[in-house]
Amino acid sequence: MSATPKAVSRLIEAFSRLPGIGPKTASRLAYHLLRAGREDAQSLSQALAELHEHTMFCSVCCNISESDPCDVCSDPHRDRTMICVVEEPLDVLAIENTGRYKGLYHVLHGHISPMERIGPDELHIRELMRRLEDGTIQEVIVATNPTLEGDATGMFLSRLIGPMGVRVTRLALGLPRGGDLEYADRVTLAEALAGRRAI
Amino acid sequence: MSATPKAVSRLIEAFSRLPGIGPKTASRLAYHLLRAGREDAQSLSQALAELHEHTMFCSVCCNISESDPCDVCSDPHRDRTMICVVEEPLDVLAIENTGRYKGLYHVLHGHISPMERIGPDELHIRELMRRLEDGTIQEVIVATNPTLEGDATGMFLSRLIGPMGVRVTRLALGLPRGGDLEYADRVTLAEALAGRRAI
Repeated sequence: MSATPKAVSRLIEAFSRLPGIGPKTASRLAYHLLRAGREDAQSLSQALAELHEHTMFCSVCCNISESDPCDVCSDPHRDRTMICVVEEPLDVLAIENTGRYKGLYHVLHGHISPMERIGPDELHIRELMRRLEDGTIQEVIVATNPTLEGDATGMFLSRLIGPMGVRVTRLALGLPRGGDLEYADRVTLAEALAGRRAI
Repeated sequence: MSATPKAVSRLIEAFSRLPGIGPKTASRLAYHLLRAGREDAQSLSQALAELHEHTMFCSVCCNISESDPCDVCSDPHRDRTMICVVEEPLDVLAIENTGRYKGLYHVLHGHISPMERIGPDELHIRELMRRLEDGTIQEVIVATNPTLEGDATGMFLSRLIGPMGVRVTRLALGLPRGGDLEYADRVTLAEALAGRRAI
């Protein structure tokens, strides 16, 4: 005999399937919603139900969007000579939040990773190559994550795109602003040294 | 102009209202569900929609339940001479999981906390007192949290119930099994010393 009502354990199970949420956190969330009252649970339920109804993938940049093409791709004020290539839709948000980039984006939806059996064909690289065909794009900024997989993906793109006469750049590696040199890891410090610039 | 579709930002907002989930985790969860496909989002949505439909509070022990009285309160095999008093429904689960308790429960839904303006009247203490009236209950085990507020609640209950001739006990305090004496905090170690038992 279980002391948990079925409706509660079903919710706990559904929460546990989310990344980073274990059974303990899932129980806490479920009981919080029980206590918090009907409204919170209903609004979350509704938001989830509508998630896939009103979203699609932009057929140009492969980002998640409300329309196809997406707001960025159809914005006449964006610089149409550069594409910033990122791994995930959240990375687009991060770069938009800097307010320093006015070009276009391309979302790969992952990175090359032989360990996870993700090759170039599993990513949206074909769509990227198609965008380079008409010669408008002059620079591709590779903004994949500063990880082994991100680097490998960047290297792959650079070898593919470089010969087409398009400039391929990579986000700078170095010390994070506000960080402390003393606590910087060896690899980051080495990158910062190697990438030093005249002042 | 925002790069986030409205359906996604609505979901991020709803997730952020949950305890322990900040805007970053909320975004990660939302984009995970977008990628994971329709099914996961739908099953979570449904579980949330049904949460309040199929659950109620047991009018005897105040625990969350599928029926009234709940499974524990209506189980003829439980020991009807003892009540274990806990703060939250999750605490009932924790004690049930030990497999060592066969009595009844009572859920207070909180603890006495003058700082948070929670007095005895905000808890389900009246319901507990009513259960003691017919003299069947011989022991009340106070299993509130080992915190200042939990202790205060326990003390309050003990003063209220003690004079009725009902035995009031408290869960033992001491070293957690598997812990390391070297890393035990001072207060816990002091409690373990004070509560030492003959072997």
